[in-house]
Amino acid sequence: MTRRYAFLGPAGSFSEEALLTLGLPDLEPVPCLSIDEVFVAVANGWADSGIVPIENSVEGSVNATLDALAFDEADLMIRGETVLDVRQALIAAPGVAMKDITAVTSHPQAVAQCRGWLTEHLPGRPVIAANSTSEAVQRAVAEPGIAAVGTLLAADLYGGHVLRKSIQDYAGNQTRFVVIGRGVSAHTGHDKTTLALFIHHDQPGALLMILSEFAYGGINLTKIQSRPTKRQLGQYMFFVDLEGHLEDPAVDLALKCLRLKLRQVKVLGSYRKA
Amino acid sequence: MTRRYAFLGPAGSFSEEALLTLGLPDLEPVPCLSIDEVFVAVANGWADSGIVPIENSVEGSVNATLDALAFDEADLMIRGETVLDVRQALIAAPGVAMKDITAVTSHPQAVAQCRGWLTEHLPGRPVIAANSTSEAVQRAVAEPGIAAVGTLLAADLYGGHVLRKSIQDYAGNQTRFVVIGRGVSAHTGHDKTTLALFIHHDQPGALLMILSEFAYGGINLTKIQSRPTKRQLGQYMFFVDLEGHLEDPAVDLALKCLRLKLRQVKVLGSYRKA
Repeated sequence: MTRRYAFLGPAGSFSEEALLTLGLPDLEPVPCLSIDEVFVAVANGWADSGIVPIENSVEGSVNATLDALAFDEADLMIRGETVLDVRQALIAAPGVAMKDITAVTSHPQAVAQCRGWLTEHLPGRPVIAANSTSEAVQRAVAEPGIAAVGTLLAADLYGGHVLRKSIQDYAGNQTRFVVIGRGVSAHTGHDKTTLALFIHHDQPGALLMILSEFAYGGINLTKIQSRPTKRQLGQYMFFVDLEGHLEDPAVDLALKCLRLKLRQVKVLGSYRKA
Repeated sequence: MTRRYAFLGPAGSFSEEALLTLGLPDLEPVPCLSIDEVFVAVANGWADSGIVPIENSVEGSVNATLDALAFDEADLMIRGETVLDVRQALIAAPGVAMKDITAVTSHPQAVAQCRGWLTEHLPGRPVIAANSTSEAVQRAVAEPGIAAVGTLLAADLYGGHVLRKSIQDYAGNQTRFVVIGRGVSAHTGHDKTTLALFIHHDQPGALLMILSEFAYGGINLTKIQSRPTKRQLGQYMFFVDLEGHLEDPAVDLALKCLRLKLRQVKVLGSYRKA
């Protein structure tokens, strides 16, 4: 049966690259214009699942994703995760060599990630802004002489010739993507649980108590981040990733204790670790 | 005496707007192409101080700034902070009305922030990508009929006519900027201290201990964030904002205790709260 996966588009984006790493058979990718739109598509049943970025090693957490998980009323959950090496490629029309390049085009953020390389290898070439790396690759294929910064997937989709596979300045750039859908994934023994913890207003020592509960259960936290709730200035909440599944007795006990003391404990997913 | 302030440019950017809110006399703004370049400009003495974004209410922490503060060898420090309401304006050439607009131009990120408004009020207009909101405003002024999404400061600088002052979809979008320079700012009694805490590898319970030290001193934390050190996979560090100044006895004691137990305690600044 074909499964429709909503992703942050357009076609050829890093989100689509991440989707393809999942190796799913009979996949129908559904491109969306924003992270919120991916959540809407899954919540309304236009797609069976979705895939969105949640954390980048250089840029940090993707708050649009964290907030959609924490505040949306559809209560979609993280069902799985995958980590992608972010590689910006230099792409041109077939037959075009480095020496023929007269201008560079891409999304300004992608250009910024490769600025050092471009200054060294293509000095003085004007930079033409594009609305997305995919749009840039399409333009490069149509106009020989213009090179695009974009994904290998986009080069493949639009018939571009890859001049260099990896030109981003920052080595080790990785993005973690999460698959969103309904319900908690099955226990595998190598799981991770993501929580949004809302504390009562003016509750000093809340984080200390939270950490003590997890320490008592021997539960390892892999990420913790405080964040304003945006409902009221100065009101904070915490996003926590921990090792273990909701069905593990220690995790279950810690959550029972936290539910007695906090304003809200929202499970954002329990899923197999990447 | 004129003081040179490096900021994330180009001229007319949100960073320059933030700089102007500081109300400094005899200010010479020095535009830079990236956050790293602002740090380099100050470290090398090309500018006396710098101003960079550190946290946005929608996008989250600006990791390029956190990392430059934590890892750069120049040991620049946060000397102050300011919070700016982020407002995207709709700007055109003088004499152009809403009904005359045939296309919209801006940095793709700025367009994304206003997508709902643009869909409702300017449906069907093609979107032309620009390398920055300032470049977009200059183009709008030069080509009547094209409207730009950009800052009020850019409209003022380039002679644009402001059609709407605030068209971003997300209300309450704020960015916190920090002033960077050398040394710790003077004690004012309304201060904040920012720390980077590096734990030893495989040190379970480190965060619990850290929070206990601050709790013992009655020190209030306003932000805490874990983050990979990027030196080695799985090695974490913490960024902490606390209320108080390095010279406060309780803060001094907590740092002395933490220095005995952690791999490194790096003070990123002690400065007056915004």
